[in-house]
Amino acid sequence: MNEPAARDGAYAALEALFAKRHHLGEALGVLGWDRQVMMPDGASSARAETMAALTGFSHELLTAPETADLLAAAEDDASLGEDPALEPWRRANLREMRRAHAHASAVPRDLVTALSIAEAEAEMAWRAARAADDFLALLPSLTKVLELTQEAAAAKSAAFGLAPYDALLDQYEPGARAESIDALFAALSDFLPAFTETALARQAARPAPPAPAGPFPVATQKALAETLMRAIGFDAKRGRLDVSLHPFCGGADDDVRITTRYDEDDFASALMGVLHETGHALYEQGLPDDWRRSQPVGSSRGMALHESQSLFIEMQVCRSAAFLSFAAPQFRDAFGAEAGDPAWSAEAFTARAQRVERGFIRVDADEVTYPAHVILRYRLERAMIGGALSLEDLPGAWSDGMRAALGVTPPNDRLGCLQDIHWPSGAFGYFPTYTLGAMAAAQLAEAARAATPDWDERLAAGDFSALLSWLRTHVHSRASLLDSEAILTEATGAPLQAAPFLRHLEARYGEAA
Amino acid sequence: MNEPAARDGAYAALEALFAKRHHLGEALGVLGWDRQVMMPDGASSARAETMAALTGFSHELLTAPETADLLAAAEDDASLGEDPALEPWRRANLREMRRAHAHASAVPRDLVTALSIAEAEAEMAWRAARAADDFLALLPSLTKVLELTQEAAAAKSAAFGLAPYDALLDQYEPGARAESIDALFAALSDFLPAFTETALARQAARPAPPAPAGPFPVATQKALAETLMRAIGFDAKRGRLDVSLHPFCGGADDDVRITTRYDEDDFASALMGVLHETGHALYEQGLPDDWRRSQPVGSSRGMALHESQSLFIEMQVCRSAAFLSFAAPQFRDAFGAEAGDPAWSAEAFTARAQRVERGFIRVDADEVTYPAHVILRYRLERAMIGGALSLEDLPGAWSDGMRAALGVTPPNDRLGCLQDIHWPSGAFGYFPTYTLGAMAAAQLAEAARAATPDWDERLAAGDFSALLSWLRTHVHSRASLLDSEAILTEATGAPLQAAPFLRHLEARYGEAA
Repeated sequence: MNEPAARDGAYAALEALFAKRHHLGEALGVLGWDRQVMMPDGASSARAETMAALTGFSHELLTAPETADLLAAAEDDASLGEDPALEPWRRANLREMRRAHAHASAVPRDLVTALSIAEAEAEMAWRAARAADDFLALLPSLTKVLELTQEAAAAKSAAFGLAPYDALLDQYEPGARAESIDALFAALSDFLPAFTETALARQAARPAPPAPAGPFPVATQKALAETLMRAIGFDAKRGRLDVSLHPFCGGADDDVRITTRYDEDDFASALMGVLHETGHALYEQGLPDDWRRSQPVGSSRGMALHESQSLFIEMQVCRSAAFLSFAAPQFRDAFGAEAGDPAWSAEAFTARAQRVERGFIRVDADEVTYPAHVILRYRLERAMIGGALSLEDLPGAWSDGMRAALGVTPPNDRLGCLQDIHWPSGAFGYFPTYTLGAMAAAQLAEAARAATPDWDERLAAGDFSALLSWLRTHVHSRASLLDSEAILTEATGAPLQAAPFLRHLEARYGEAA
Repeated sequence: MNEPAARDGAYAALEALFAKRHHLGEALGVLGWDRQVMMPDGASSARAETMAALTGFSHELLTAPETADLLAAAEDDASLGEDPALEPWRRANLREMRRAHAHASAVPRDLVTALSIAEAEAEMAWRAARAADDFLALLPSLTKVLELTQEAAAAKSAAFGLAPYDALLDQYEPGARAESIDALFAALSDFLPAFTETALARQAARPAPPAPAGPFPVATQKALAETLMRAIGFDAKRGRLDVSLHPFCGGADDDVRITTRYDEDDFASALMGVLHETGHALYEQGLPDDWRRSQPVGSSRGMALHESQSLFIEMQVCRSAAFLSFAAPQFRDAFGAEAGDPAWSAEAFTARAQRVERGFIRVDADEVTYPAHVILRYRLERAMIGGALSLEDLPGAWSDGMRAALGVTPPNDRLGCLQDIHWPSGAFGYFPTYTLGAMAAAQLAEAARAATPDWDERLAAGDFSALLSWLRTHVHSRASLLDSEAILTEATGAPLQAAPFLRHLEARYGEAA
């Protein structure tokens, strides 16, 4: 009689321990939001110390010897609790606990600390180097980050039996492997160059719509953004909208906070940014109540699935002609424009929201050219991690890659390999998730549309209940019960594929569009 | 050779441990600020869990068996480090560590938890009871809080060899004892009733100044408040000004955040509130850099000394005729008033800032009548803790006390014993610090003026450098190196007395004023 009780006790003890870690994570979520939205400049070093201390507590809880013992004991048990209906959730929760433990234990503590210091230094150097367009100024600290990341990847590779780059990918999107990504990205690389030409030619053949005349007061933009967020399903009692230099979605339990940056000359870009982050926020707000406030299984799945939710709302919904036919009159009313003004027609907003342009900057890219930016970074970071590309050669490889993929050559490194913070901050293996997310969004949207025959009519009427309900059922409520591939397969009938994304691009930007 | 190293190691280990606690406290400071200023309603229960978890971590660190061992080892040591110049700070730091440990260890964990739950319930009940003017609705939960507070006071009394009420006082103002407070408050009670009559008669004999006509836009009020805060010495790179329902000063290291509540019909009350909180903030910003960011000795001394800093700035400085002769033109310019408008003259602002009125509400009281509110609460809470006053009799005792002290009878409990959150939230022993602070402010100001012959000329010219420098030297930089009595004695030549406060009242409100 004793042994099952002891085993049940192990799982219960793990739930208590991971609840503590969760609360530390919640505190870090608010502190991180505050740092970007509220904190005065003079507090940055004190805040860094505070956040490092909380991160340290969380790491100590996870890597304590007792935790390993509890995991082993719970994994040995045939049942993790009294209610068999909860068994799959508990089992998945235990799997997520093991996953967190494996990632935290694989890398020696000294290396974690060294990497964190090197990343902080490289981020500082990057800010100055980008402003001064001086890649050489970043080189020493970026070299340090790369070397330590290679060490960490090697350690995780040995611990997990994965290739080093796969071990890095797995940090951001559990289960993602370069082999599958290669195949998916190859489908895009085969299709996109010629398709981009087609889309640009089609666009050039049509008159560009006039732009609405500003200025657009920030208070009006914010009120409009909040109205649309709420219309789509954002629960304003459990979240906020604020301003930060780099828009993001963060916060804590029942407190999902998104940010944007307003431009008085162009309200549409901030608004689309808000709607993108609203997609992230809906995911967080839709996680299952029984688990999200304390356990790993209640968390959102990896970054690719998270990005699929923001791109579902932004690209699949809010940049569509149907949605913009609902939104355009609201835009006009908010800013007091004339109903007959051609710059304010739904068609004009749609043309601008679907504009394709070959540019240098990833975050400004449209959905047709965006994958080229990501695939270049994916190729380069694999080569860097594998040792085939030395950092000295990065600027040249970047320029060559941009020319080959998009036919444009960045005039300097600021518009080239210095544009993103990811590598200085050690986030090798993150970039692919953006385009995996775009593909997943298209695949989910195709399935959701198939289940909702009057999809466009609903969008045009501002009725988002069916799409939100579909996402709640098929994605949000699943949390981390399954891996992303299984969630996608159950939701759409197939694992992640490129075809739905390509069909979406054809329908929106192709010759027949 | 080994033993001193081991002892030195004990102190060093304690510094590391208390730095961790400090960082948890910093996180709680930001989370607490956020809860009152930013947090959406729906997050209140999740936030309570997060903050309880962090408080729990801090408590565990403090009460771990190793901590007691380290304290004993360090206290045995003849020297706490290599630099003898730092020895007094280290010794005081160790004393503060012991103090924190003693308070945390004296009360059993179960009682701490029970009290914290009872307080949360009573605070909720208080909000409803105050709104409904229904003391009986608060009675059951307040009874629970009182009983558990009596238990905690008894436990601390036994552990410290102090009277139970003194053990409670000591939580808020280290070293404060009822015996000294009795003597100080007796001096006030002897003086104030007749003096209040005098002040009111003097006031009645002069024409009341006309009030400036609003509305006063919030953005203008905020800009004006920030200008004056900075002029007095608030470092805006290490702090913020925001809005909350109940004004306070909180935040974290290098990040001191004060709040206010604006009224479009009356800018002076919000502004004086900001200047009051600025006094608290200057104290926090002036703590010694070498200690404030990690160690207990680097913290502000008790609540009485903290209140002395806010009242020094508000009452001694900003409600003076000299300061208002500097500020009045700024008020006029900010709101675009005519220079000749009598409502906007320095004399009119001074008359309004120094208005005396017998009222029901403590937080609205002027400095002449405020002590009566505090002394009543002090008398009642001692009787409650001692068992001489049962809670059923509190409303009657309150009304009798107000009639005796101020000659006014509250028409209901909302304007009587339901007005403050302190008792429902378990803060028995806190009230006296307000009036101890007012007396300390007057005593410090007398000494600072004596050291600064051109005090009024400087205030009238908007030059606050001398007063800030005096406070930095004599109060802020001392942090918790000494106790409050010693800080006051070194700064003013005497321990806390009532006389300087009474002289201040005579000078400002007396017959000869």
